Amino acid sequence: TEPTPITIARGDGIGPEIMDATLEVLQASGANLAVEEIQIGESVYKRGIMNGMEPSAWESLRRTKVFLKAPITTPQGGGYKSLNVTIRGALGLYANIRPCVSYHPYVSTKHPTMDVVIVRENEEDLYAGIEYRQTQEVTQAVKLITRPGSEKIIRYAFEYARANHRRKVTAFVKDNIMKISDGLFHRTFDEIAAEYPDIEHETMIVDIGAARLADTPEQFDVIVTLNLYGDIISDIAAQITGSVGLAGSSNIGDQCAMFEAIHGSAPTIAGKGIANPSGLILASVMMLVHIGQAEAAEKIHNAWLKMIEDGIHTVDIFKRGVSKARVGTRDFAAN
Amino acid sequence: TEPTPITIARGDGIGPEIMDATLEVLQASGANLAVEEIQIGESVYKRGIMNGMEPSAWESLRRTKVFLKAPITTPQGGGYKSLNVTIRGALGLYANIRPCVSYHPYVSTKHPTMDVVIVRENEEDLYAGIEYRQTQEVTQAVKLITRPGSEKIIRYAFEYARANHRRKVTAFVKDNIMKISDGLFHRTFDEIAAEYPDIEHETMIVDIGAARLADTPEQFDVIVTLNLYGDIISDIAAQITGSVGLAGSSNIGDQCAMFEAIHGSAPTIAGKGIANPSGLILASVMMLVHIGQAEAAEKIHNAWLKMIEDGIHTVDIFKRGVSKARVGTRDFAAN
Ligand SMILES: CC(C)[C@H](C(=O)O)[C@@H](O)C(=O)O
Ligand SMILES: CC(C)[C@H](C(=O)O)[C@@H](O)C(=O)O
Repeated sequence: TEPTPITIARGDGIGPEIMDATLEVLQASGANLAVEEIQIGESVYKRGIMNGMEPSAWESLRRTKVFLKAPITTPQGGGYKSLNVTIRGALGLYANIRPCVSYHPYVSTKHPTMDVVIVRENEEDLYAGIEYRQTQEVTQAVKLITRPGSEKIIRYAFEYARANHRRKVTAFVKDNIMKISDGLFHRTFDEIAAEYPDIEHETMIVDIGAARLADTPEQFDVIVTLNLYGDIISDIAAQITGSVGLAGSSNIGDQCAMFEAIHGSAPTIAGKGIANPSGLILASVMMLVHIGQAEAAEKIHNAWLKMIEDGIHTVDIFKRGVSKARVGTRDFAAN
Repeated sequence: TEPTPITIARGDGIGPEIMDATLEVLQASGANLAVEEIQIGESVYKRGIMNGMEPSAWESLRRTKVFLKAPITTPQGGGYKSLNVTIRGALGLYANIRPCVSYHPYVSTKHPTMDVVIVRENEEDLYAGIEYRQTQEVTQAVKLITRPGSEKIIRYAFEYARANHRRKVTAFVKDNIMKISDGLFHRTFDEIAAEYPDIEHETMIVDIGAARLADTPEQFDVIVTLNLYGDIISDIAAQITGSVGLAGSSNIGDQCAMFEAIHGSAPTIAGKGIANPSGLILASVMMLVHIGQAEAAEKIHNAWLKMIEDGIHTVDIFKRGVSKARVGTRDFAAN
């Protein structure tokens, strides 16, 4: 069969080295891919392109519709818009999915049995970018919540739960204060939940929900929420797994999808061969599932889990070296 | 000397019983108070007063300017505005202070050395209550951030840090996305921090800061932030101390101040004599400091700490009974 075209970007900092490791793993897994590479991030900013993307990069993304992206560095200072937000908006990536899993006892964590998936709305809310200064002393930002936007992300969460044999979907809102905007999200949630009688549903006020998530994440399964709350709680959830450096995430739209590690470009350790490629490798597993190459996905995921488990005695070594991880990844083909 | 007039409200649910316990403690401590009682909450809503406050209640508050408030129950359903938000707005209580302390080993916690104070802006942000439905399908809420509002809360945080011998103030913002509104808060923070060279300062993006707070709260000292972020992170911080049921908070304005437990009215255990009055007792300690009765405050605080510490073998009993706690509180006078 024809290989599936995908677009990749090596990114900045540790990006190139973890992308190389990931591509090696993909090859070893037998995944059937035709890889196109684009340049984004630092090198493009340096050429004066303020949003970090070249026109040809957009063409590739619109053609392949699948993007595996290494971390990039957004320049400090005014005038630059976050590249992540730009890509989400341009490609209509309305859903950000972050599985937050503990790998106890192989990775140390205070929450050994946690296994939560955050489904975050990715286009609306305060991220719509509508802000203004009314006087020198008064500024406002506008939070946008729409019925179609809410419907889409909530339906995605329930479909995800069903497809992944998950038991429960919890919505986080603050509609005791924002009765109109968060209220719309809440009502939409209740309506759509009624279409999925096989899946439990519940709603929590976001402050209470976030506190429970930080304290006893084991009580949650799938969480669906607005963009800003999702931003905050997905960082919390990833962090307390103890394995934030190992987590991947996907950004899904009707047409396109983007897959990335949730960690940053870590410029201080770049080029030293000590970066852990796990986040991008797990993102590539999500990508393979998305494009229907579930067999290769499972192969990589199992080999990766085995490596983590074998690491019970060599966890430092594993954590210390791309080289070690690469040796591990070469064994993948054998599995 | 003249007794200091204060206003109290017994509230709903477990409110009356924990207020009785607290008043007993205050009396035993030798605090010099003239107590006025007002009715707020359920009984007032039932008489059709939609905001839960009678005109005479406002008069008392404007006269005494000091309010010790037991938890109340806000009715479900539309048309009711949160009484907390109403009081904050009407009395100009711009600062919400929440000390989040672990009482290890007396109260079980995953974060034994945590000692964080959250200073939350209490009037602006999305709590200004400006929301509208533009079409059936599109709603917006307006986030308001002003220079004077930001200045006031940030200055409060640094003054608090200095008065309480705290080392560091951390601001949480999201100005990589909200460059104008959160950007204003960030700039104001940097300017005011420069006036306090004796106190360290730093800024964190709220998602990263919240994740660190949930994971390693020991790295924080005083945190100052916008209303909504503060709402979320103060619930997280209180929860992971393991003693959310024991925490008090203060709401401070230029004229007036309000002191309360951070837990709710817990209607299911009301009237059973099993509620723990600690939150309101610690709120009353904050109140005594505020009105300049530091000696009585210290007496209660020390006696309370001693009770918690003695509880190392009787913690269940302490947790189970107002009656037990009351016996403890009677011993206060002896201290
Ligand atoms: C970098 C930033 C714009 C982004 C966000 O807030 O969405 C990041 O925090 C994330 O969660 O992907
Ligand atoms: C009850 C609610 C309006 C309130 C708030 O969001 O401010 C509460 O969560 C709090 O933190 O005091």
